[in-house]
Amino acid sequence: MNILVLNTGSSSLKFQLVCVDGKSENVLASGLIDRIGGEALIHLTVAGKTSKQTAPLRDISQALAHLIKALQKLHDQIPGFQSLADIHGVGHRVVHGGERFQSSVLITPAIQASIVDCIELAPLHNPSNIKGIEAMQEILGPNISQVAVFDTAFHATMPETAWLYALPYSSYRRHKIRRYGFHGTSYRYVSEKYRSLSGTSLKDCNIIIFHLGNGCSAVAIREGRSIDTSMGMTPTEGLVMGTRSGDLDPAALELLATKEGMTLNEVQIMLNRNSGLLGISGITSDMRDLVAEVDEHQDRRAQLAIDIFCYRARKYLGSYMAAVGPVKAVIFSGGIGENSALVREKITSGLEHMGINFDTERNTSHPQGKDSIISKPESPVEIRVIATNEEIMIARDTRFLIEREPKL
Amino acid sequence: MNILVLNTGSSSLKFQLVCVDGKSENVLASGLIDRIGGEALIHLTVAGKTSKQTAPLRDISQALAHLIKALQKLHDQIPGFQSLADIHGVGHRVVHGGERFQSSVLITPAIQASIVDCIELAPLHNPSNIKGIEAMQEILGPNISQVAVFDTAFHATMPETAWLYALPYSSYRRHKIRRYGFHGTSYRYVSEKYRSLSGTSLKDCNIIIFHLGNGCSAVAIREGRSIDTSMGMTPTEGLVMGTRSGDLDPAALELLATKEGMTLNEVQIMLNRNSGLLGISGITSDMRDLVAEVDEHQDRRAQLAIDIFCYRARKYLGSYMAAVGPVKAVIFSGGIGENSALVREKITSGLEHMGINFDTERNTSHPQGKDSIISKPESPVEIRVIATNEEIMIARDTRFLIEREPKL
Repeated sequence: MNILVLNTGSSSLKFQLVCVDGKSENVLASGLIDRIGGEALIHLTVAGKTSKQTAPLRDISQALAHLIKALQKLHDQIPGFQSLADIHGVGHRVVHGGERFQSSVLITPAIQASIVDCIELAPLHNPSNIKGIEAMQEILGPNISQVAVFDTAFHATMPETAWLYALPYSSYRRHKIRRYGFHGTSYRYVSEKYRSLSGTSLKDCNIIIFHLGNGCSAVAIREGRSIDTSMGMTPTEGLVMGTRSGDLDPAALELLATKEGMTLNEVQIMLNRNSGLLGISGITSDMRDLVAEVDEHQDRRAQLAIDIFCYRARKYLGSYMAAVGPVKAVIFSGGIGENSALVREKITSGLEHMGINFDTERNTSHPQGKDSIISKPESPVEIRVIATNEEIMIARDTRFLIEREPKL
Repeated sequence: MNILVLNTGSSSLKFQLVCVDGKSENVLASGLIDRIGGEALIHLTVAGKTSKQTAPLRDISQALAHLIKALQKLHDQIPGFQSLADIHGVGHRVVHGGERFQSSVLITPAIQASIVDCIELAPLHNPSNIKGIEAMQEILGPNISQVAVFDTAFHATMPETAWLYALPYSSYRRHKIRRYGFHGTSYRYVSEKYRSLSGTSLKDCNIIIFHLGNGCSAVAIREGRSIDTSMGMTPTEGLVMGTRSGDLDPAALELLATKEGMTLNEVQIMLNRNSGLLGISGITSDMRDLVAEVDEHQDRRAQLAIDIFCYRARKYLGSYMAAVGPVKAVIFSGGIGENSALVREKITSGLEHMGINFDTERNTSHPQGKDSIISKPESPVEIRVIATNEEIMIARDTRFLIEREPKL
């Protein structure tokens, strides 16, 4: 079964066309369309070859139409893909599922309406996801099976002590203001991969995972289930990220708004797009570029951005060790987590008093793109690097739901 | 030397008249004036006897004038206090010292202006402190020596990685938005007391202290100095408190404001006055009352408030263990920290994997008002209860500064 996996953002679109047979997954095509809204950049990889082109693409809908045409053109290079009828389902990453969605679902008109209801909890994210769903219905016809896979769903197991904020209780009852958490699809993949790599049962799966990419978060997992996570009602809370502030005195917002003459909505956008590594360094939101700035120019604020990023993650590591109880492993995943030996070292070295014995040699020789152990053999808590793969998880869920409830 | 120690809030006033001779301190009189702005309640303790009365007191200034008259009336019961001339100095608790004040200072007109400058960082606190300073100048005359002791000063040693938020750097440069931390006077007292009780040198003083009172915070101390603390730019951030939310997704404020039709300032007041234990439970901000509600009525939300309060503190404990490195002790202080065995147990039990071996028996038999150790003898990390005393610290600082720089 061929599943088109879509991750639609406000101005970008990632996709994979995956053949799933229940035992293994095979990526037939993948790519990225960036800068949607203007002269968009299109990267398309088919049969190991990547093509790059540009095209004026007004919105998500145009971008998806462009993508489908491009796939049709290349059909003779894609095994098992002759026409649009060979797309058997579409799996969408949907950022916010609120309390309604605790697992992936086949999309019906009612489900679509519920996802729209979650917009107010994720005004910067869910609208693009909905546009993607609508566009695919138009392009592939109303009978196409589509599945929504929610970033929030994995965290539905959190206890109330972890998800309720200390606000007047009515703000939860009336407005559903609470911690939801995100990156759940990545955490599900990584925790399952950890269990299979280490032969750990669900019951013994007490671990902490860092997903450090463009967005960054951490999760505390007890007996295989999320019991706490650093992102909150929205992805703004928690760790320092590329452009997001993470944790912040909530009282700072009023002073910011007053001093800068901004509306609360403008402050919100600032916390999401101009803060984090970019805000501290004033240079870039990209960890690789920050490390280069420090190496080449000893840039003070680039160093500070790296230091704060790692220090804040280290504190979450400690707090989740107190929350979970004895943990078996701390796992790094995501672009930064998988590729930055420096970041992993700054987060986990010098924690022997907490049972974490970091191994410098293993860390620096970690093979990119692979899974490995970077703690000392005698370390009570393992440190691991596991390459995440949200797309495969979305493809699996999509196939599973389509096979369970086939369309008439 | 007799020092009048004042802690002025927006509608309440705590005071102590303390005789300080450089070796010991002797409290001559103490008390509390509450509900200032209406029919105020006045509690006054002199020579071990407490009197209670009410009086209409419009503001801090009237309350202080009332207090001084009451002390004059009782002068024959107060050794060494015949007239106002026997008040040799006034020590004020000032909440926010910004970056300007890294230690206590003798108040001059220039200093007073600088404290006014800090108002925008602490709009709910500093104004009352300034009113107290002004009122005492009027009552005791312009030649009275007054000293400001800042809640923030102890945290001046924090490294930039701990105090800088991941906002655009200009928000620090231009508006001084950063973590300051509070309860510093209490932490200074407790850490010095810990060193003298345990015979620990400054260099070996690696500890974590919880100040759990009406306001609640935690501090990470390395080599005797604050390296991180849970309160931030304002006292709103960090742990759950009686009426304050503590940590919260900063993005929740916009949804709250929109849904409740509140201004950002009204949201701010809600986070400070209607949140925390009171907000979750919907009953009370007082931990003792919550525990009674659970004992007597098994109230679900009272239990939830207690659980969240302790869970959030437990996470800070873990995070500061990762920040400090091997710690020698975890110390509880403040009204709740010193008196609630339940809270101490919920925060520190079950952390053997982090070297903290809680002792149930020692905890429950901790003598109220005393200092004791509540961990097992073999615990790598000690757990202690130390009764804090900010007033004594303020009296000491006031005497020290007056003797160093006597008025002409």
